[in-house]
Amino acid sequence: MNESPVADDGTLLREHVLGRVTEELSAMFDGVFSPEMVERYVFESYTALGRTATFTTYLPIITRRFALDRLNALAHAQGKRPSGVPEVLFVCVQNAGRSQMAAALLKHLTQGAVNVRSAGSMPAEHLDENVVTAMQEIGLSLGEEFPKPLTDDVVRAADVVITMGCGDTCPIYPGKRYEDWHISDPATMDLEGVRTVREVLTTRVRNLASGLITVP
Amino acid sequence: MNESPVADDGTLLREHVLGRVTEELSAMFDGVFSPEMVERYVFESYTALGRTATFTTYLPIITRRFALDRLNALAHAQGKRPSGVPEVLFVCVQNAGRSQMAAALLKHLTQGAVNVRSAGSMPAEHLDENVVTAMQEIGLSLGEEFPKPLTDDVVRAADVVITMGCGDTCPIYPGKRYEDWHISDPATMDLEGVRTVREVLTTRVRNLASGLITVP
Repeated sequence: MNESPVADDGTLLREHVLGRVTEELSAMFDGVFSPEMVERYVFESYTALGRTATFTTYLPIITRRFALDRLNALAHAQGKRPSGVPEVLFVCVQNAGRSQMAAALLKHLTQGAVNVRSAGSMPAEHLDENVVTAMQEIGLSLGEEFPKPLTDDVVRAADVVITMGCGDTCPIYPGKRYEDWHISDPATMDLEGVRTVREVLTTRVRNLASGLITVP
Repeated sequence: MNESPVADDGTLLREHVLGRVTEELSAMFDGVFSPEMVERYVFESYTALGRTATFTTYLPIITRRFALDRLNALAHAQGKRPSGVPEVLFVCVQNAGRSQMAAALLKHLTQGAVNVRSAGSMPAEHLDENVVTAMQEIGLSLGEEFPKPLTDDVVRAADVVITMGCGDTCPIYPGKRYEDWHISDPATMDLEGVRTVREVLTTRVRNLASGLITVP
């Protein structure tokens, strides 16, 4: 083993944690994806999130969730483990406001009857504070959410892709439904403005949901 | 086959081109990586570049180069196809100026005796115009280069990682040499300023090269 002056305990700890995540996810996807493929997903997810994330303390935890969700998306898309429910992907620029709000609203409304994901073309460092507050006001917590880069696997898994303000950054695949929603960006708004966006999205998401499942 | 109203000829053409790239690279890495892994590299590279690229016409071409370089990096890092030469990675924020200049200078100076890569933590849409001009003035063309996101594979492959202005976004691995160079960002400079950066980088890159190989 070479020893580098910068390979301190933190580095070795990260290696250890990501190695354990790889083992855990490899077991979960045994017979579906090779351990080598799972390892790539874990480490590339870590590096992709690390390029923009500020809270590096939680990076291994959100890496696990991001890699797991991507592997689930890929397994579904390839027909290896179909989820059995409609899959919806919301994409905006920063995955810090619009797409996070829409995803939370649809998850809440459909209660597991739809699989919901979100992503951004240029993910922000963290969620917009006013967005978190506005969602809290209606009882929805975004505390565990984080901005994620758009990846191919989640597009492939989706039956419906909703883009908001991210132009042509999302790959188009045949057999999917694409919608472009014109929703103003909450990034520059005060809380009152974000509440308005929340109400607009609530109506849109409700209409979307009623076309996918029987909404309670 | 489902037919989507948005799955026009352009989409089918892209699918076809990326499929052929996958086939070609799968043959090149036969016995090294599974076709499934290569397919993931091609399509995830496409989506990652597409999030920031503006010239989508060339996207399949640069996707091929990016995926090929990443697979070469991974094969080297895993000892499956060692390059046999020192590998250097330059990382800055946008991969549009500093890291591109440093990479071009080191490539030119070492003429294949060092494998050189560059990447950015938040890649720009295209290279900085003044940077391209300043490098042209010394006979180095950046015409085929493009901003690339930092990925895990290229970090793993590197013996030396040079960061410039991108903070802690680069994963640290044991056994590598890391240097952080304090070089001003050309993004906001006029051509005269970029020429100064070019000269500073030339000296630094020459010193770096002389520590790695016998510079001609």
